Amino acid sequence: MDTKCSVFIAASVDGFIARPDGNIEWLHRPEYECPVLRGLTYDEFMTTVDALVMGRKTLDKVLSFPEWPYENTRVVVLSRGEVVLPPELRDHVDVLAGDPLLIVAQLAAQGLKHLYIDGGQTIQAFLAAGLINEITITRIPVLLGKGIPLFSQLGGELNLSLIDSSASDNGFVQSRYQVLAQACSVDKTGSDCRALEI
Amino acid sequence: MDTKCSVFIAASVDGFIARPDGNIEWLHRPEYECPVLRGLTYDEFMTTVDALVMGRKTLDKVLSFPEWPYENTRVVVLSRGEVVLPPELRDHVDVLAGDPLLIVAQLAAQGLKHLYIDGGQTIQAFLAAGLINEITITRIPVLLGKGIPLFSQLGGELNLSLIDSSASDNGFVQSRYQVLAQACSVDKTGSDCRALEI
Repeated sequence: MDTKCSVFIAASVDGFIARPDGNIEWLHRPEYECPVLRGLTYDEFMTTVDALVMGRKTLDKVLSFPEWPYENTRVVVLSRGEVVLPPELRDHVDVLAGDPLLIVAQLAAQGLKHLYIDGGQTIQAFLAAGLINEITITRIPVLLGKGIPLFSQLGGELNLSLIDSSASDNGFVQSRYQVLAQACSVDKTGSDCRALEI
Repeated sequence: MDTKCSVFIAASVDGFIARPDGNIEWLHRPEYECPVLRGLTYDEFMTTVDALVMGRKTLDKVLSFPEWPYENTRVVVLSRGEVVLPPELRDHVDVLAGDPLLIVAQLAAQGLKHLYIDGGQTIQAFLAAGLINEITITRIPVLLGKGIPLFSQLGGELNLSLIDSSASDNGFVQSRYQVLAQACSVDKTGSDCRALEI
């Protein structure tokens, strides 16, 4: 059974997803409200997602928001340590530990077909494991100068194929890529993951 | 007198301009030949440039090419050490030393109005000095995983304004930005450089 893993993320032109302390206020300027993008909207993307997979740091960030933004989406938090969840979230959030391949195999075995992979470290770990199939990056017109990088020194090269790119009236550039040259087919036992030329 | 400084560069989606050893062969795939971009072409850009400013490492890279590609453009190489140039280039290439502000002031005093700033370290130094006015990045559809970064931890934030963005049929995404919030006005004495809100 194949399970697709996608990234859908905003980044500065210099490749940061947050300021060094995790701050994402730079994403929330008045002129950034309601960008008119011709491409895939976040809401459209979310309707295709069976679960959102994020690391512990991203969970902490999301818990600092005034409201839990994923009411209708199952969330999987990757953590080797204990995660104390607010009572109202315990039915919506699962905590799993393990390497990315085992996580995908486990969720694939539950019938999940499309995973939204979020957070810098989690995205990098899944990319390094060859598990990301599609990447949508929305470039925000700012150079942050420092911060938490979307990518890092992953090691291997991955070819991409541009699916679509469009600019919004307030200067966002959204580009959607298919990841080529590596793909991971995960069967129910989790034993059939291998690099594929696609 | 104002002198504009522009960046016009290709980068991988993860922000590298070369492999760790400076290799840029990944830019020269058959499918990357003759991209049809709706935006500003390199040739169009070059006709607006009075001089190309690059670091010593970029010069070494360019000298490894079969032909000198800047026959009609004055080239300024920044180096504090001695640079031995092939005899045929001595009339085309100047070697200057000094911080970016002094370099721009010196070239402005010679009447140069548009400088093309190239090479990772040189671009970063000019950005950090608030001297870059326009950035055109062509994103090549590849994740290199490691290499020489276009940007680095510069420190300060710079707002950008998207001028234009377009995708080519082979998956290049070219985005052109004006740099806001900092600009440098250099008079003939080089003493009038200051941060401007523009």
